[in-house]
Amino acid sequence: MTTEYLVSQINQKKSFLCIGLDVDLDKIPAHLLKVEDPIFEFNKAIIDATHHLCVAYKPNTAFYEAYGIKGWQALEKTISYINKKYPEIFTIADAKRGDIGNTSTMYAKAFFKDLAFDSVTVAPYMGKDSVEPFLAFKDKHTIMLALTSNEGAFDFQTKKVEGQELYKHVLETSKKWKNSENLMYVVGATKAEYFKEIRKIVPTSFLLVPGVGAQGGNLQDVCKFGLADNIGLLINSSRGIIYASKDEGFADAAAVKAKELQNQMEEILTK
Amino acid sequence: MTTEYLVSQINQKKSFLCIGLDVDLDKIPAHLLKVEDPIFEFNKAIIDATHHLCVAYKPNTAFYEAYGIKGWQALEKTISYINKKYPEIFTIADAKRGDIGNTSTMYAKAFFKDLAFDSVTVAPYMGKDSVEPFLAFKDKHTIMLALTSNEGAFDFQTKKVEGQELYKHVLETSKKWKNSENLMYVVGATKAEYFKEIRKIVPTSFLLVPGVGAQGGNLQDVCKFGLADNIGLLINSSRGIIYASKDEGFADAAAVKAKELQNQMEEILTK
Repeated sequence: MTTEYLVSQINQKKSFLCIGLDVDLDKIPAHLLKVEDPIFEFNKAIIDATHHLCVAYKPNTAFYEAYGIKGWQALEKTISYINKKYPEIFTIADAKRGDIGNTSTMYAKAFFKDLAFDSVTVAPYMGKDSVEPFLAFKDKHTIMLALTSNEGAFDFQTKKVEGQELYKHVLETSKKWKNSENLMYVVGATKAEYFKEIRKIVPTSFLLVPGVGAQGGNLQDVCKFGLADNIGLLINSSRGIIYASKDEGFADAAAVKAKELQNQMEEILTK
Repeated sequence: MTTEYLVSQINQKKSFLCIGLDVDLDKIPAHLLKVEDPIFEFNKAIIDATHHLCVAYKPNTAFYEAYGIKGWQALEKTISYINKKYPEIFTIADAKRGDIGNTSTMYAKAFFKDLAFDSVTVAPYMGKDSVEPFLAFKDKHTIMLALTSNEGAFDFQTKKVEGQELYKHVLETSKKWKNSENLMYVVGATKAEYFKEIRKIVPTSFLLVPGVGAQGGNLQDVCKFGLADNIGLLINSSRGIIYASKDEGFADAAAVKAKELQNQMEEILTK
């Protein structure tokens, strides 16, 4: 998917919401545990109920790997379902991968070609040749960790490197990599005040923003400093939407929560 | 597996060799492509031919994910085969994972419990709460990236943070984390001169050392600066061993290459 198409979808739906499909069998409605593939059935119901309110879905691979082969199958079925039924949706494999060149190429192949995701998240620690193999794929997007939403973000990411914080150094450096136009970045919503500085370095790049809701980030604050001319934001909510209810009406309850966020986004986009 | 047991295996086998099981269907012998599970059959043959010469096997998950469900099944079969037939072998899931707390717990569960690996590699960028969920598992080992063997290592890892290189800062900081005795570190062999400095920070920690052979690192140099009282080194070779030959005798050819490295290690350990 091209960035232009993603922007057009945001404008059409008046939403830059991404829904995180982080399925934990301990948290889904009990009646689903009786069906053959509870993870996929849960995702399918959530997707059918929310697809018009969001522009992206983001399964985190950890939640699928934790269930072994069955989990991996559920991931394949989920991405395949989205791609067939809702091809207008931007898909993100939240995998946080990164390895030496030939190995990163294998990961890129796994997520971009075999699973046909539009994008994958990657970690920056191993530098240029660990990320460029992902960037080589046309109309695919590589979403690199910059400033994450967790406490541990302050262990290394905000430490000064050559006079500027590591996450800024990561942003600056990555702009020089081959096909860097295919880069997006993860920036946590719990650190809204940082968006102003980040926009000085990457004024138009899309930022994937976790941490609204369950992790305490505020949508208005993020948009105040983070919105770009091309919008440039994908705000993710996972638990706050998909676990809105544990009873049979869980998908409708998820849609209500998604609609609340979409309403706020519509207000921000149209004012 | 306890560290003490690993050390006893090293002393018994006179080897601290780790063999990387990075199976690429384009590189394995053609006759294997006709069997039902070429990846597993290739691994099985390599393992049977080399298990007495090494103390660890390290499948890199990228090479399995690249083949989807079939790849994941081959990974499960491989680790299960090692655990049943050669339980004395230390197993490493080279996955380079790392995410926010509850998500890292899912990864830890996937690799330590379901797949029953002895260890997993992780990336440090997200800090303490992205790694501690792995450290919570008793007698399991978390191998964190410190200084990698690729070119991109110089993009961030060697940059100065508060007066010392980032990789040293990562090493120092991680020593304060809960259950840090379960940490090992990845340090590339292509940077042997750095081992001296690293041993000042982590004098006894096990270091997993990729980059000997195909990537140009030198075993003698690494050992000169990296060997600890408890040995503290696992030297990995992947392509140099497993792709020694493309014909029917590929496993024997791999054993010859493994034996060459084991001989060098025996010499180092007994002099």
